[in-house]
Amino acid sequence: MSAKPHETLATVLADDLAAVNGVIRARMASEHAPRIPEVTAHLVEAGGKRIRPMLTLAAARLCGYEGAHHVNLAATVEFIHTATLLHDDVVDESAQRRGRPTANLLWDNQSSVLVGDYLFARAFQLMVETGSLRVLDILSNAAATIAEGEVLQLTVARNIDTSADTYLKVVRGKTAALFSAATEVGGVIAGAEDAVVQGLFDYGDALGIAFQMADDLLDWQGDAGTIGKNVGDDFREGKLTLPIIKAVSKADAAERDFWARTIGKGRVEDGDLEEAHGLLTRHGALEETRAEALDWAARARKALEAAPAHELRDTLGDLASYVVARLN
Amino acid sequence: MSAKPHETLATVLADDLAAVNGVIRARMASEHAPRIPEVTAHLVEAGGKRIRPMLTLAAARLCGYEGAHHVNLAATVEFIHTATLLHDDVVDESAQRRGRPTANLLWDNQSSVLVGDYLFARAFQLMVETGSLRVLDILSNAAATIAEGEVLQLTVARNIDTSADTYLKVVRGKTAALFSAATEVGGVIAGAEDAVVQGLFDYGDALGIAFQMADDLLDWQGDAGTIGKNVGDDFREGKLTLPIIKAVSKADAAERDFWARTIGKGRVEDGDLEEAHGLLTRHGALEETRAEALDWAARARKALEAAPAHELRDTLGDLASYVVARLN
Repeated sequence: MSAKPHETLATVLADDLAAVNGVIRARMASEHAPRIPEVTAHLVEAGGKRIRPMLTLAAARLCGYEGAHHVNLAATVEFIHTATLLHDDVVDESAQRRGRPTANLLWDNQSSVLVGDYLFARAFQLMVETGSLRVLDILSNAAATIAEGEVLQLTVARNIDTSADTYLKVVRGKTAALFSAATEVGGVIAGAEDAVVQGLFDYGDALGIAFQMADDLLDWQGDAGTIGKNVGDDFREGKLTLPIIKAVSKADAAERDFWARTIGKGRVEDGDLEEAHGLLTRHGALEETRAEALDWAARARKALEAAPAHELRDTLGDLASYVVARLN
Repeated sequence: MSAKPHETLATVLADDLAAVNGVIRARMASEHAPRIPEVTAHLVEAGGKRIRPMLTLAAARLCGYEGAHHVNLAATVEFIHTATLLHDDVVDESAQRRGRPTANLLWDNQSSVLVGDYLFARAFQLMVETGSLRVLDILSNAAATIAEGEVLQLTVARNIDTSADTYLKVVRGKTAALFSAATEVGGVIAGAEDAVVQGLFDYGDALGIAFQMADDLLDWQGDAGTIGKNVGDDFREGKLTLPIIKAVSKADAAERDFWARTIGKGRVEDGDLEEAHGLLTRHGALEETRAEALDWAARARKALEAAPAHELRDTLGDLASYVVARLN
């Protein structure tokens, strides 16, 4: 691949994407509360890759859609994503997002909570305009699954006995639910048959899971230029990523104490990062996570076989390969 | 009136209300995240008066509705209300709500934000089940107006130059938008004609405004038993209520300095509450606010004339009288 797949998507879908950006700018306005577009613009214009709206646009186009509702739906998906980012930053007390200070730092938590609520409401207004109850059903279910995944993540935080099953539920909620809803509604709005819609859903679901597992692994190989984080950020924040869940499941008593202190209690000392990396390597936790991520990427490509042959279908397949290609 | 109007509504609508409570209990459950029903139950079972869902039920019934969708819609309205309460408590850093510790105090801000998001999503799922795009349009618009009103309130906080116009926009957002949507969707689901639906909307709008103005006034006459707050709570929190906006508009230079210090900067000293009350009385600010509240209650009753004659229509009229009847 010469161009990266998301760059190819952005080129092929350039006109659609320009229309989406137009809808986003128009709908983030507020007659009465100028802080709303300020906060939203800070995040929307920070140069996210617009992966999720591109998934909707690509899914609709590869199913032969020629209407205009896919633009509204793509903007809906981006609004839901932006709203969850605003709320996540409050929940995580984050200071940086997309390489810039977070809205909760620049304004306050209050603005982040309320502007997030506004964007959720705007997202629902946009969906209602499509007039498709099936689309509304899919996206309202996704919104519930996202919130449920986030609450689940909060309740298992720092619990080192969290299972790989629970991890998958959290990931399906906080990441995969919006990916799969994004591709599914693209097929639905295009009037694709059920098998195609199911394939698009499965693709988004598997892509989201592969994406999150790759993100977990990148915490250990460092890729600050690409993803804006440093080696061990997740570890220092006590995040229960899949490699750690796997290492805990194979830990002896002393190793368990180590994870209980660092992840469980958040008491990280000098040398712990190297010790953790050593344990992950010794138990094959990084290698196993990498194999799972590759497997989910393969499932994503396989699911696309249900969709019609199309240049965009190939690019979506490349995207699944790309999210795991960066893994050592 | 012997029974209070909201008690009469609860009696007449008892079966419907029991069905609403059943839907609320069923839909606040979460397979994966047990904290969600814990947090929600804390608030939902704290004994709110269920005014908003009763408005939807009453509006549908007085229009002759015999179906079952009004129950889902009433639960939707209560979920939206509960979600905004959870988020408000984070925004206001509140410690008490309905006489009990707030969820953000018992759990954490994170849970309040995320469980609120979950309830918003659940609300949209419930509306989608009604299959009425018009209802979805009304309630998604109301959700946007609520968030917009809350952001506007945040941006004008402690600004003593806030106008009565801006005050009305904030009140329409944070209070009246859900009242008017609640009554409007009751009429819509019943298939009422446009003039009736408009009357129901106008009733809810005026009732919400009267309700908020009465609440502003009760801060000065004390009614801890009824509303769970003490004389001067709003003043000490620096809230820009209508009586204060009116007093500021008539203030001389020294009085302006007083408001700038107490409301603007939040520096409240011994004797300031009495001084503030004196200024409000001297400028007729309490009396004028009371007259406006009575006027909005009268508008609410007048708007009901568009609706069909019905026992419930009379009780809704009594409710409008009741919210301002407590004012000295």
